[in-house]
Amino acid sequence: MTQTTSILIKDPIIIADEVHRNSILVVDNKIEEISSKLNDNDAEVVIDAHDKIAMPGLVNTHTHVAMTLLRGVGDDQALQTWLNDYIWPREANLTDELVYAGSRLAMVEMIKTGTTMFNDMYFYMQQTAKAVEEAGIRATLGYGMIDLFDDEKRKQELKNAKELIKSSHNTADGRIKVAITPHAPNTCSAELIQESVKLASDNNLKLHIHVSETQDEVDLIKNEHGMTPFKYLDTLGALSEDTIAAHGVWTTPDEIKLLSERGVTVSHNPSSNMKLASGIAPVADYLENGVNTTIGTDGVSSNNNLDMFSEMKLTALMQKVNTLNPEVLKTRQTFNMATVNGAKALGVNTGELKEGKLADIVLVDTNVAHMVPLIDPLSNIVYAALGSDVNTLICDGKILLKDKQLTTLNEQEIIDEARSAALQL
Amino acid sequence: MTQTTSILIKDPIIIADEVHRNSILVVDNKIEEISSKLNDNDAEVVIDAHDKIAMPGLVNTHTHVAMTLLRGVGDDQALQTWLNDYIWPREANLTDELVYAGSRLAMVEMIKTGTTMFNDMYFYMQQTAKAVEEAGIRATLGYGMIDLFDDEKRKQELKNAKELIKSSHNTADGRIKVAITPHAPNTCSAELIQESVKLASDNNLKLHIHVSETQDEVDLIKNEHGMTPFKYLDTLGALSEDTIAAHGVWTTPDEIKLLSERGVTVSHNPSSNMKLASGIAPVADYLENGVNTTIGTDGVSSNNNLDMFSEMKLTALMQKVNTLNPEVLKTRQTFNMATVNGAKALGVNTGELKEGKLADIVLVDTNVAHMVPLIDPLSNIVYAALGSDVNTLICDGKILLKDKQLTTLNEQEIIDEARSAALQL
Repeated sequence: MTQTTSILIKDPIIIADEVHRNSILVVDNKIEEISSKLNDNDAEVVIDAHDKIAMPGLVNTHTHVAMTLLRGVGDDQALQTWLNDYIWPREANLTDELVYAGSRLAMVEMIKTGTTMFNDMYFYMQQTAKAVEEAGIRATLGYGMIDLFDDEKRKQELKNAKELIKSSHNTADGRIKVAITPHAPNTCSAELIQESVKLASDNNLKLHIHVSETQDEVDLIKNEHGMTPFKYLDTLGALSEDTIAAHGVWTTPDEIKLLSERGVTVSHNPSSNMKLASGIAPVADYLENGVNTTIGTDGVSSNNNLDMFSEMKLTALMQKVNTLNPEVLKTRQTFNMATVNGAKALGVNTGELKEGKLADIVLVDTNVAHMVPLIDPLSNIVYAALGSDVNTLICDGKILLKDKQLTTLNEQEIIDEARSAALQL
Repeated sequence: MTQTTSILIKDPIIIADEVHRNSILVVDNKIEEISSKLNDNDAEVVIDAHDKIAMPGLVNTHTHVAMTLLRGVGDDQALQTWLNDYIWPREANLTDELVYAGSRLAMVEMIKTGTTMFNDMYFYMQQTAKAVEEAGIRATLGYGMIDLFDDEKRKQELKNAKELIKSSHNTADGRIKVAITPHAPNTCSAELIQESVKLASDNNLKLHIHVSETQDEVDLIKNEHGMTPFKYLDTLGALSEDTIAAHGVWTTPDEIKLLSERGVTVSHNPSSNMKLASGIAPVADYLENGVNTTIGTDGVSSNNNLDMFSEMKLTALMQKVNTLNPEVLKTRQTFNMATVNGAKALGVNTGELKEGKLADIVLVDTNVAHMVPLIDPLSNIVYAALGSDVNTLICDGKILLKDKQLTTLNEQEIIDEARSAALQL
């Protein structure tokens, strides 16, 4: 890892509340100063960023990173076929080693496309924690609990979740947090969800859960409980400012008001919702009603990559066409969904380029044809940039990517290991 | 330009009717042989492509390339505001020099993201032809005629179209074709459209026209003519196997049958239709009914780039969610839309990696994290690849991009010129 205590990012176009050209001084793991008066003597490392855009690192608020190993498995299938015939049989073969290999592959992909923090729910999470620690980025990690309404299974799942708190919460210089992650209201018993809420509250952790992803799920919950999924979760005390609800596709207007009142965050997953034909989430309505709305890629096998630039563009475009209103999802709103809203959701002091914030910074090349002209830098970031335009990535004050080269990870070794790991699934 | 008469592409994974590993021999401007028996002595230039996917060059069937200069102008506006307040006032300042600069910028972007052929409609098209000739790719170019129902204007527009035929048809070793391009049924008189049909037919040219892009257009045509846009165009004789209809968003089931009967090609433009909130085209129905359906980026200011990889993914994803059926738009169908269907539309013997076809070939890197594992190469191309994964591009048997470096164009000079050109709009 590049060990530096101060970095001067010289003269980029900065996407802050305003878009302006200035310099950024990073000291230790924070943004110390943003000013035009900084000079080369102020820092140990100087990055000439005159032809770069500086923006906060992207925050991917819903994913299952080890699923990189399942890229291209079971495309174009109906959801239940996809799960039953393609995904679950392979996931049954998962091991510590395979999850580590898949997580490492995801670290490479995320760092190279500008993501500095992600929110994950899966299995063998100590392995993902190890990959995050080595890579140098931030993550909130949860053990995905599914009890399928079985008492014994519930106890075991909660035990696993508690072990993850012990092993991993606040590790890696505080870059890793643990969240409590019951899978979904239709795969977890009421007891499991209630105990999850208590476990999260007792340990001051986030609660991360899939909700209202498909029509089938909504129908099932309505049949079982006589109410829609978010209403049902509210009766279990599961909706609060610490809740991150992934998907939220079939949310009713009443539920949207409830989410706003409770301060729940929604993680919108456009590629996944489109690819699995789950539906179109009412994102414009979420924003209109003040719901903290963020963006996730979901797992790779329903996407099929982890590129948050694509997700930003897709988020805006899908809402415009779905409402037949091109004025919804302004570039600034979309950008905030992928940055500061995600940081707020995960309770981390980042997601914005401001003095005092954690130094999670991405530098994007502007001297490439598809970023020319630069009439509106924010527009180019949201609508024109590709993930591969990320030139430099700093997380927690450390340079993890410099001139498109990883500093903490051996890319070829990770690719080779992932290839052989995928063959074992 | 790299002048070679034979190229051996050694050992790539080839996306042909089957996906298989083999070698490709290019002689002059054609694919001479695809075989496992080729060796280094068979060609003057040998490209080791063991870690690459070889696929046909992408075909962008609807664009206005010089609009690269308007990237980021007027995002998130209603269509009429966008046109009236942002686009048209700037287009009024266009000159030969500016269109040349914008076209050159587009050549760089397209070559670097895998496009070998495009279908364009705009102004000052001799300048675009010049840029295409220098770049080495293929294009079908049309002068965009708009008479706004004025007799004098109509005559002038047809004169311009005829001049373009004379100056540019079948130039650049046959890489440039001219098409007849009346703008749209609501901006062109019936006479102009009829004369366009005759002009195209007399000269054996394609007819390229915007149709059924917005609800407003459909309403207007129905009010004027008592029928929907495609039915109206049919009464003018404008629907044939030589017709490329851009957008086709609000097409009715009856019209879809008509398009199928007449052999019309539809150019689907997902980003543009979404960003301008025009609507969602019935692409799954087009394919179901045997309509030759292709993909276009439209102009940059309603996209905001020319990356056909994004458009492929978006095409598939939007149809799945719109029909709530993940099984529509299989990877192969989407891929064909972006390749062979486009070649068929433009009447060029390319779009497939087969012996005897023109050598328009793209090599895509597979040794990057987001292309690992390579369980299904076609899936990785459609759903996981970024435009920037294009490593090498061959058009008409010439190498235009090698290891991501342009061979025919000076990228920095073009970027610098485009930046100053954009300031003049």
